[in-house]
Amino acid sequence: MAADWLNEIKWDGEGLVPAIAQEADSGHILMFAWMNREALEKTVTTGEAVYWSRSRKRLWKKGEESGHLQKVREIRMDCDEDALLLTVEQIGGIACHTGRHNCFFRKLDSGRWIIVDPILKDPMKIYKK
Amino acid sequence: MAADWLNEIKWDGEGLVPAIAQEADSGHILMFAWMNREALEKTVTTGEAVYWSRSRKRLWKKGEESGHLQKVREIRMDCDEDALLLTVEQIGGIACHTGRHNCFFRKLDSGRWIIVDPILKDPMKIYKK
Repeated sequence: MAADWLNEIKWDGEGLVPAIAQEADSGHILMFAWMNREALEKTVTTGEAVYWSRSRKRLWKKGEESGHLQKVREIRMDCDEDALLLTVEQIGGIACHTGRHNCFFRKLDSGRWIIVDPILKDPMKIYKK
Repeated sequence: MAADWLNEIKWDGEGLVPAIAQEADSGHILMFAWMNREALEKTVTTGEAVYWSRSRKRLWKKGEESGHLQKVREIRMDCDEDALLLTVEQIGGIACHTGRHNCFFRKLDSGRWIIVDPILKDPMKIYKK
């Protein structure tokens, strides 16, 4: 039987849906990414967030290189059925490839984007070859 | 002088950027929507959230009919410069057109989307002619 719950999602023209990852305990928004059907299915099956990388055009298991996996506690869908919200536990406390806790570290301040969050770990040390 | 901060955003092929609205005090995600340049400029100028309605193809001041405006406290941009996070005060405590506090009221539960949040106000009473 086809997964009806997957068909209830209004996938966009590229077969993708936007996904927001929110940290369970802090409520902080960690990142914004995209999923295709396979990414969402794998996320549900494994309990760890898998996204679709639009730049690399492939499935992207969050933390596959860095070890900064996201354990998924809950998945929600919005009223228009075209956006997802994941509540996750962020392993390592770092969601951003810049080594920051989350990706939204720039704040608009008097007509300029100011970096307001610190780098917690040098990306060179996160992404070792 | 052109607004450099607007040019730093990587607008998509349709001139839009995704925007997440998070409630300031609760940390709840209220909604997910889109902005074009004009919507974002108006949001910044007025201090109240203005989005771009993709279905109606026009600017959409949040709460223009319902009165459920969003007072914007902070705007953040992510590492890829292609997503925005708004921290807002939700007037009326209702962000969703269904009369719920927020739009992410469906939760995936054993292969089904279950409605888990209550309607706080009948939409018929929100959207009076």
